[in-house]
Amino acid sequence: MQFDGTDFAGYQRQADGVRTVAGTLEAAWLRMLGEPVVARSSSRTDSGVHARRMPVLIFTDRLVPPGNLVRGLNTFLPDDIAVLEAADVTAEFEVRADAVGKRYVYRLMTGEARLPLWRRVAWFVRGELDFAAMQAGAAHLVGIHDFAAFRASSCTAPSTIRNLRSIELAREGALLTLTVEGNAFLHNMVRIIAGTLVDVGRKRVPPDAVAQMLLGRDRVRAGQTAPAQGLTLDEVFYGPHGARQGLDYKELLAHMNVARAG
Amino acid sequence: MQFDGTDFAGYQRQADGVRTVAGTLEAAWLRMLGEPVVARSSSRTDSGVHARRMPVLIFTDRLVPPGNLVRGLNTFLPDDIAVLEAADVTAEFEVRADAVGKRYVYRLMTGEARLPLWRRVAWFVRGELDFAAMQAGAAHLVGIHDFAAFRASSCTAPSTIRNLRSIELAREGALLTLTVEGNAFLHNMVRIIAGTLVDVGRKRVPPDAVAQMLLGRDRVRAGQTAPAQGLTLDEVFYGPHGARQGLDYKELLAHMNVARAG
Repeated sequence: MQFDGTDFAGYQRQADGVRTVAGTLEAAWLRMLGEPVVARSSSRTDSGVHARRMPVLIFTDRLVPPGNLVRGLNTFLPDDIAVLEAADVTAEFEVRADAVGKRYVYRLMTGEARLPLWRRVAWFVRGELDFAAMQAGAAHLVGIHDFAAFRASSCTAPSTIRNLRSIELAREGALLTLTVEGNAFLHNMVRIIAGTLVDVGRKRVPPDAVAQMLLGRDRVRAGQTAPAQGLTLDEVFYGPHGARQGLDYKELLAHMNVARAG
Repeated sequence: MQFDGTDFAGYQRQADGVRTVAGTLEAAWLRMLGEPVVARSSSRTDSGVHARRMPVLIFTDRLVPPGNLVRGLNTFLPDDIAVLEAADVTAEFEVRADAVGKRYVYRLMTGEARLPLWRRVAWFVRGELDFAAMQAGAAHLVGIHDFAAFRASSCTAPSTIRNLRSIELAREGALLTLTVEGNAFLHNMVRIIAGTLVDVGRKRVPPDAVAQMLLGRDRVRAGQTAPAQGLTLDEVFYGPHGARQGLDYKELLAHMNVARAG
């Protein structure tokens, strides 16, 4: 699916009357096929967060050709959400556990004026940011690290180790785009990374402080949580059938030992 | 200025109660500076058309540093419109007549599903378009031509000759972007070009028919007028002070004679 998250209270279904992504999709399915279903997603995006391509899994008893499903559901869905593609999967497929990677994009508008054409999908940060410093700060985050400092205090993931495969910063005029790819993400991790890199760009903290934040494992040392509106779930990756997300623990331990020794 | 044209009834001020770009800017100026002004623009964009960078000229008796003007006006403007920059110009500057070129962008969403993240700034054309055919069709439009077939029937411009300096078609996934640069444009010219190229992409007309449309000079032979929502005024170019838009007539006549001889 793709959706503009501005007017949604996040992915996960809530009480009646709260407009959520899952609730809206399930309602469209019910209207089209007369079947109550549960829409399982790879990621429970927060209120205001967008998705360019979010996979959703639905178990159904109806035999509908995927093409008809796309066209049919879209006629029942409001204009800020759409099904882009549909496909049959095997019964063993798990939309969450089988994901081997995700890519998020965080957009910033910089300079003296907010950009009306980007206002729904970008965060306005007044003034100029030091782009080179932000890139230097971002480089510290790439790799297998303990991201305990970069998760919401409410996050309950048992492990805080993640493999951040890449961070790319791109600039086009006043628009700055942060593209982050990793095996999985902690709650608010990308938004805290964005907030931290903005602090670096504003020269409130030096780029090297980012490495200290990682080692400190303390949420209060990292930057603010950047607003939801700037965040877009860009893509979720799946490996060959049966692959599960997670890290190779030998690789991880070797890396952690090197980091500690260094 | 930049604005999301979705909720504006075009640039030009209309009766009270109609939400226009000029009216909104003039109201913000009046509130900030207590001065009634007329906002002159390079282009009178239609209802629903957007602008990434539209120059606007205002004569004022107030001495306000341009930086303060940007920040001040933006606090009085709604979030779908903003002043990006401000600068003093000489009294001789004319925002419309001094423009030596303009660039417009027309965006299309193709494929089986509309794209919610692009819904405000792109036109959804269901199905696949033949990209190579569209490029071949577009190539016929580049150069100095009589664009009589590519203007709104209401257009009253005395001359229909324009120099279309370049047309670029780019594709990124389901999003197709048409970028058109020229010395000046007739009313609805870019939207009729977009509609015509979509007909070519759908194989309703062959690419070479575009050349015939130009020569025929008949509005009914060109394609439909593509919807306003897909159109964005991207940039307006100014030459050295005093330069006026328009064509070198010797160059034009030579070109037209060659075209007729061919």
